[in-house]
Amino acid sequence: MYDIETVRRDFPILSRQVNGKPLVYLDNGASAQKPQAVIDAVTQAYSMEYANVHRGLHYLSNLATEKYEAVRGIVRRFLNAPTEDEIVFTTGTTEGINLISYAWAAPRLQPGDEIVLSILEHHANIVPWHFLRERQGVVLKWVECDANGDLDPQAVIDAIGPKTRLVAITQMSNVLGTVVDVGTICRAAREKGVPVLVDGSQGAVHMPVDVAAMGCDFYAITGHKLYGPSGSGAIFIRRERMEEMRPFLGGGDMIREVSRETVTWADPPMKFEAGTPGIVQQIGLGVALDYMMGLGVEAIAAHERSLRDYARDRLSGLNWLTVQGNSADKGAIFSFTLQGAAHAHDISTVLDKRGIAVRAGTHCAMPLMTHMGVTATCRASFALYNTKAEVDALVSALELCHELFG
Amino acid sequence: MYDIETVRRDFPILSRQVNGKPLVYLDNGASAQKPQAVIDAVTQAYSMEYANVHRGLHYLSNLATEKYEAVRGIVRRFLNAPTEDEIVFTTGTTEGINLISYAWAAPRLQPGDEIVLSILEHHANIVPWHFLRERQGVVLKWVECDANGDLDPQAVIDAIGPKTRLVAITQMSNVLGTVVDVGTICRAAREKGVPVLVDGSQGAVHMPVDVAAMGCDFYAITGHKLYGPSGSGAIFIRRERMEEMRPFLGGGDMIREVSRETVTWADPPMKFEAGTPGIVQQIGLGVALDYMMGLGVEAIAAHERSLRDYARDRLSGLNWLTVQGNSADKGAIFSFTLQGAAHAHDISTVLDKRGIAVRAGTHCAMPLMTHMGVTATCRASFALYNTKAEVDALVSALELCHELFG
Repeated sequence: MYDIETVRRDFPILSRQVNGKPLVYLDNGASAQKPQAVIDAVTQAYSMEYANVHRGLHYLSNLATEKYEAVRGIVRRFLNAPTEDEIVFTTGTTEGINLISYAWAAPRLQPGDEIVLSILEHHANIVPWHFLRERQGVVLKWVECDANGDLDPQAVIDAIGPKTRLVAITQMSNVLGTVVDVGTICRAAREKGVPVLVDGSQGAVHMPVDVAAMGCDFYAITGHKLYGPSGSGAIFIRRERMEEMRPFLGGGDMIREVSRETVTWADPPMKFEAGTPGIVQQIGLGVALDYMMGLGVEAIAAHERSLRDYARDRLSGLNWLTVQGNSADKGAIFSFTLQGAAHAHDISTVLDKRGIAVRAGTHCAMPLMTHMGVTATCRASFALYNTKAEVDALVSALELCHELFG
Repeated sequence: MYDIETVRRDFPILSRQVNGKPLVYLDNGASAQKPQAVIDAVTQAYSMEYANVHRGLHYLSNLATEKYEAVRGIVRRFLNAPTEDEIVFTTGTTEGINLISYAWAAPRLQPGDEIVLSILEHHANIVPWHFLRERQGVVLKWVECDANGDLDPQAVIDAIGPKTRLVAITQMSNVLGTVVDVGTICRAAREKGVPVLVDGSQGAVHMPVDVAAMGCDFYAITGHKLYGPSGSGAIFIRRERMEEMRPFLGGGDMIREVSRETVTWADPPMKFEAGTPGIVQQIGLGVALDYMMGLGVEAIAAHERSLRDYARDRLSGLNWLTVQGNSADKGAIFSFTLQGAAHAHDISTVLDKRGIAVRAGTHCAMPLMTHMGVTATCRASFALYNTKAEVDALVSALELCHELFG
């Protein structure tokens, strides 16, 4: 039984007020709040158990190393990755995708080689590929979604041609909430011998993930959206792809031997983790993922589906509101504009006065905004701790906006 | 007046025991402990003030952005950089130096171009340049220290030839404590038109830093060694060098506009900060640097000099101990071996039983270890909270090692 009031009490910030009103935090697509268990783990790590990892033999270093390395197993379990060695720690999806761009793609792709992208992508899954376009003549092939925000997996598969070297695609749009059938894409791409990178920044937060069943080659997650600390994250890299990768960041921990003339590399995953890592952040990420698995990722998804259905129903009753994208099984993410009226930024300012936190702008997805024909939207994005009463608060505040700007 | 007992009470971990003995933490070269003010700032940020930065307009996002961006000014002041815009946030020195290698050096350096390095360098200031050697034929020119660990700045200056494009050098050896006269090197290099990157990982912790007076082009610091959170850091980049740099990591926040065919960049420093940054870590770093400046960086340095002198005196009385490097004005870092006896790892294990945390190994400085003719050392590295009584505890435990292994 998913007891939302008990869940909410786990998140201290949810008890605060903003502008004299109870906080209604609907900016989860940008970053999620943290449960007390994560905050306590961070405090404990810094207060009583802190040292650098890997290189020490003393008690605190061993303790920190054990706690830090245990997170690899937690991430493996969360993603159902085959082995822990296929989990590389990162500072988030942005670093994860750049790692693949610099260490796997850049040394392999030739001028004219193609990367297939969907129009739904976040800049984190666009700009690293633009680098390859600018710097080495790689061609970006875009697959569009329809007016409803749906992306036909067959259209992605059809875009894979003889020069395609990678498909880079999100599992869930951070703007529209569209869920992409990445499993179907991965199976078809695999038959064609083309690796698939899945941006799990939103997907991993809102749906159970099974990278083994999905069949992807790369799956990137961001800890701060998963109720973990800022600066935490990981990427699953299929073993065969790891073996094709050169190192990315150079420094301590990722080497075997360094001399004046030569350098040799540590085995993966260490080969891809240079320098002192985000020790305490990753320990916190482990606690966050354990928290999610403790609630049950299916139970979280079910709760969010009920929020989505309720919000969709209530928002559809506002005939002066345009919601961008209405895919049937979308996540609980709603981007909207007020017809013929206020700028998204003005709406978010009014909502903020009522304690409601939403995002306004292009949501790091400019090609999608252009495709949808909007310059900016407001986005209300829900998480495991949101309630139907908060949907009501949003609707009520939007009605006020309509009065003010309509 | 530097009241060491008051200072120690600021660090909760220093009150704990390890293996039934009071913790004597002498592994500061690897990472430093955190004052309560930093821990409290992290807790407060996650508990009551958390949101993503830059892209929001709501109260919590504005609050987090203000706190996060204020740290840029704190770092500027700590380093005496000319402007805040020359401070780029990183996850530490490793990322900072890789940023320079990928974004400034890689697109500029041609086969046969030279980078001058000292033999004192940490792998973080070696491996990124080995990448350029391996990938594009750059030549690494090494300048040696003498048997005492001293590095003649003139030898570095003399190594700068017509093909030298960069000098990359540490301000303080993490193994020997040697302080390098980087100011003299920067002045001469500037006259020759060669930029200088200074690795401030240790220097910034133990001595006042003034990058304007020093005249360097790049100065990298690591937050977790500066009593700040893991995964925090920054690099000073002189404006002229910034203008020569292409972006490094691609993603949100570092772009101006993204379309299917094109991408344009945000102005520096944002151009070099992709994706959601280490929000809370950087807020914690600001508190840590304020803490150091509150104590006074000169006062901290004076305290550590007195520890160095006391430790040097006491260790020199152990005629079966070999201390590597004895530079006159070195930092309070002591690497040592027991003559003809125990392996460094065994020594550190015995010390750990007495609650004393030191590091054993190659300290991410293999070329230096080879140059000094050792395979591994123990390293005791001091910080602002260490005491002469802890030096005594170290000496006493070393005497036990001598009895056991001698």
